[in-house]
Amino acid sequence: MSHLEHSLRHKLYVIIFRTDTALGRWFDICLIVSILASLLVLILGSVESVNERWFSQLAYLELLFTLLFTIEYLLRLYCSPKPWAYAKSFYGFVDLMAILPFYIALLVPNAHFLGVVRLLRVMRIFRILKLVQYIQDSNVIMRSLWNSRRKIFVFFSMVAILVTIFGSLLYVIEGPENGFTSIPTSIYWAIVTITTVGYGDISPVTTLGRAIASLTMLLGYSILAVPTGIITAEMSQEVKQQKRTYYEHRNLVMCPNCMKNGHEPDAFHCKHCGSELPDHEQRVVKITDHHSDYD
Amino acid sequence: MSHLEHSLRHKLYVIIFRTDTALGRWFDICLIVSILASLLVLILGSVESVNERWFSQLAYLELLFTLLFTIEYLLRLYCSPKPWAYAKSFYGFVDLMAILPFYIALLVPNAHFLGVVRLLRVMRIFRILKLVQYIQDSNVIMRSLWNSRRKIFVFFSMVAILVTIFGSLLYVIEGPENGFTSIPTSIYWAIVTITTVGYGDISPVTTLGRAIASLTMLLGYSILAVPTGIITAEMSQEVKQQKRTYYEHRNLVMCPNCMKNGHEPDAFHCKHCGSELPDHEQRVVKITDHHSDYD
Amino acid sequence: MSHLEHSLRHKLYVIIFRTDTALGRWFDICLIVSILASLLVLILGSVESVNERWFSQLAYLELLFTLLFTIEYLLRLYCSPKPWAYAKSFYGFVDLMAILPFYIALLVPNAHFLGVVRLLRVMRIFRILKLVQYIQDSNVIMRSLWNSRRKIFVFFSMVAILVTIFGSLLYVIEGPENGFTSIPTSIYWAIVTITTVGYGDISPVTTLGRAIASLTMLLGYSILAVPTGIITAEMSQEVKQQKRTYYEHRNLVMCPNCMKNGHEPDAFHCKHCGSELPDHEQRVVKITDHHSDYD
Amino acid sequence: MSHLEHSLRHKLYVIIFRTDTALGRWFDICLIVSILASLLVLILGSVESVNERWFSQLAYLELLFTLLFTIEYLLRLYCSPKPWAYAKSFYGFVDLMAILPFYIALLVPNAHFLGVVRLLRVMRIFRILKLVQYIQDSNVIMRSLWNSRRKIFVFFSMVAILVTIFGSLLYVIEGPENGFTSIPTSIYWAIVTITTVGYGDISPVTTLGRAIASLTMLLGYSILAVPTGIITAEMSQEVKQQKRTYYEHRNLVMCPNCMKNGHEPDAFHCKHCGSELPDHEQRVVKITDHHSDYD
Repeated sequence: MSHLEHSLRHKLYVIIFRTDTALGRWFDICLIVSILASLLVLILGSVESVNERWFSQLAYLELLFTLLFTIEYLLRLYCSPKPWAYAKSFYGFVDLMAILPFYIALLVPNAHFLGVVRLLRVMRIFRILKLVQYIQDSNVIMRSLWNSRRKIFVFFSMVAILVTIFGSLLYVIEGPENGFTSIPTSIYWAIVTITTVGYGDISPVTTLGRAIASLTMLLGYSILAVPTGIITAEMSQEVKQQKRTYYEHRNLVMCPNCMKNGHEPDAFHCKHCGSELPDHEQRVVKITDHHSDYD
Repeated sequence: MSHLEHSLRHKLYVIIFRTDTALGRWFDICLIVSILASLLVLILGSVESVNERWFSQLAYLELLFTLLFTIEYLLRLYCSPKPWAYAKSFYGFVDLMAILPFYIALLVPNAHFLGVVRLLRVMRIFRILKLVQYIQDSNVIMRSLWNSRRKIFVFFSMVAILVTIFGSLLYVIEGPENGFTSIPTSIYWAIVTITTVGYGDISPVTTLGRAIASLTMLLGYSILAVPTGIITAEMSQEVKQQKRTYYEHRNLVMCPNCMKNGHEPDAFHCKHCGSELPDHEQRVVKITDHHSDYD
Repeated sequence: MSHLEHSLRHKLYVIIFRTDTALGRWFDICLIVSILASLLVLILGSVESVNERWFSQLAYLELLFTLLFTIEYLLRLYCSPKPWAYAKSFYGFVDLMAILPFYIALLVPNAHFLGVVRLLRVMRIFRILKLVQYIQDSNVIMRSLWNSRRKIFVFFSMVAILVTIFGSLLYVIEGPENGFTSIPTSIYWAIVTITTVGYGDISPVTTLGRAIASLTMLLGYSILAVPTGIITAEMSQEVKQQKRTYYEHRNLVMCPNCMKNGHEPDAFHCKHCGSELPDHEQRVVKITDHHSDYD
Repeated sequence: MSHLEHSLRHKLYVIIFRTDTALGRWFDICLIVSILASLLVLILGSVESVNERWFSQLAYLELLFTLLFTIEYLLRLYCSPKPWAYAKSFYGFVDLMAILPFYIALLVPNAHFLGVVRLLRVMRIFRILKLVQYIQDSNVIMRSLWNSRRKIFVFFSMVAILVTIFGSLLYVIEGPENGFTSIPTSIYWAIVTITTVGYGDISPVTTLGRAIASLTMLLGYSILAVPTGIITAEMSQEVKQQKRTYYEHRNLVMCPNCMKNGHEPDAFHCKHCGSELPDHEQRVVKITDHHSDYD
């Protein structure tokens, strides 16, 4: 491999994979815009009246976006230092899934299969998470969810038990004549009830059934306060942590003129020489850079 | 401009724009009462039976309120030191929108357009927020919402992704014959489901559809604990902050008799000379006055 | 008034109004049981099939309970040191309302009025709150709700504004042909939607209507996290306060044998002489007695 | 009883009742898998189409699982040091209930009774809680729920009062012609509304009814923030407690090489000699072992 090629590959890598250069950010933004546009095409294509009128235009746009994403995928494989690792990663899989169905559909033209094609296309939306990543605060939410993953699992186990018991109870009490045709259907009803969705497509009719259903709702309500409690407790800790980190790091904010640090987090001018300090946002980004630089 | 006119304009300014004089407060209260009354007229006018019977009376009242608001708007423009800045501000726009549609409707009498007229009239309700502002605690809520605006944006991005994926999934699984006529409709269903509203106008029928719907509900439920967590975490901090501020500022409470300060926040009498202290509410207002004086 | 009568009145007062003697507690429990029983009679009387079969029995029971409550009300008036103050108090009013309708119904026998009679009877259920009062923890909940009453008011103002705006919007967009017959009906729809109840009796049909409805749900959801945030923040403070109070007061727990105090809150035996300490529950009650003795 | 038999019984006891040996854990996992499998058989058996096609296979599987659970129950009685205490315990009762109905159904073959049989079978799912117990964090949830049991009771009393009052109100206002056929039905409606489930099978039609229903929803919403507040407050305390306990106990982490302790909780190597420390998970388990060893 020539030096020139190596240099090109590295430049491409910085643009496509990294987000800490102006060009890299522009690439990401363009990518996300085209993902959203391709999603819009997909969504509009599902509306009968739109599809009938703009069928060929939508088909052309879909072709265009698929080609675009194909080029992007090949470039990613080309410039990545470890192409295989990329291909096996979550985003690598999603990127492939976004283009593969189109080509499969060309080979195996099957009406029902096209539905699945559309479906897989939607997964590309996950790329937007990268945009979200720019926002500092998403880490707080993600870490809260991650830290409480085991508590959430325990909670779901409880819900699973409750839902099975109440679903079975209602199946026995109400029976198939009132819409509770089988235990799976009754469990579906219990989930609809316990999450307070309440479609009303299946609802108890007998007095005992309604009494048990009322219990389900109230018990469920208390139990469902649990995930809120879990996430709030974690998030309070995260917010505190974040503030502490912020204050601990304020010594990192240095006046570009007199090189003195120790400025208050809300200071805009150096308290020693009065020259302007680097602006607020950038400081925070600089501090947390070593954590969220790569995805 | 004569001195007399200047003095009149300033007096009007104090009454109309500021809230720290007795007259200014009375003006605000009268204004809000008339806004609520005009809203009531609007709402009653939309009820068929009421409209038929009291048509002319309601029309007269609407005319009356519109004239009143027009005078108020012109006065505001007249007495404001920067009329153009007021006209371009949020409240200036809302004030104009509350009267403009009436005059437009006079010129362009169109049945469908009248609907939009009514609509814009409703926006005047935002003025009530000014009343809310008198209440100290609204700041806590507003600041909590403001501080967590970026977290809420991240949360909405997650909801948008989830809703698109699950909506598309259900569209593929259930299909148009079960009410999922297009992806936008399916996304609407997903939002109805994930926010636990659950109208039941569209609901899954197939076993797989119901299983995925159950997953949507449960996953959605965990995710929806996030905004509560965010706002609770912020609000806990705000409540703490508020208490601390309150204690830090107690030196501002001064005995009107012996001029000594440092009184406990719950003291009603000076601990040095025993004379009555300014009452609790006023103290707090005084402390926060420099923040919320102007809107 | 003779001394004997005075002594009798005081004894009755202690039994009927106070809760710190065994007899007083028994009286309260009997009262609440009879209130619940009278409520049950009322509720059962509303069920068609039950009412037809047990009409006379239910009528006799209602007569019995009314007489019982009448005697109780007269006794309360008789033994209270300030009968007029009692009669004007909240519980005095509720007690009167529980018996008055029965006598009014005897004088003015009107079918529709009987409904209202039943309604007022239900208010007696508030007496149960007295039972709840025995439980230490109810104070935490009540104080949290009370402390956050202004924040809750602000929150309701926000909801009122949102609901009016979105209700009017949907009225304009959907119109009477899709069930949004008037602005009040549309506001009712907006409340049903924003509180995530979602009956589905009125639901948007047009694409724009559904889009706005989706916005209502999501916006509403974020806003509705506010009361949870408010109450959680207050409650966290209350829980902390309660723990601190508890520890500060542990010096009040005195060994009945060696008269030494300073025992750990979870100690069951004196650490100096080993004799049994007064049990946990009673200690807590003793500590908080001066606060919640009277209702 | 011979020494050999005693030794066998003890060995069985360790395997069946305790969870701190590899064999004991395997036994638990096998048991839970078979419980879940038997539940699946039960659930599938309730689906008409599946039951028709696989009737005999499902019946055989049910027989097999019942025999398995019977053997397990007898073994538990045999090896337990206090068989009677086990039989009277919660799990003992549940274990009996899981097998008894099958034998009763053999003796008293009654179609309706078979439903109840199925019902009791479902209770065995509680065994899964044992699996959940392995997870450290379930204790936090359980303790939070347990600590706030009295607050939750108070909350339910409030809900009961509200629901009775609003149910009765709507019964009087709407009447049987709009679906509010009796007070119990109206209370059911109030529960459905206040928990924001909102099936829509019963919903107010009159203007006054809708106004009161709106009040129910909004009031209910504020009240329903209470359990979330309760559990969050408790959970925050638990999380803090857990962290503190964790740090206090870090002296228990001892280097297996140099026998020195005082290692940071996130240390993987001894800071004195550099040899590997026992891994994170095991340390935590060891610390909390004395609490949750037996169920």
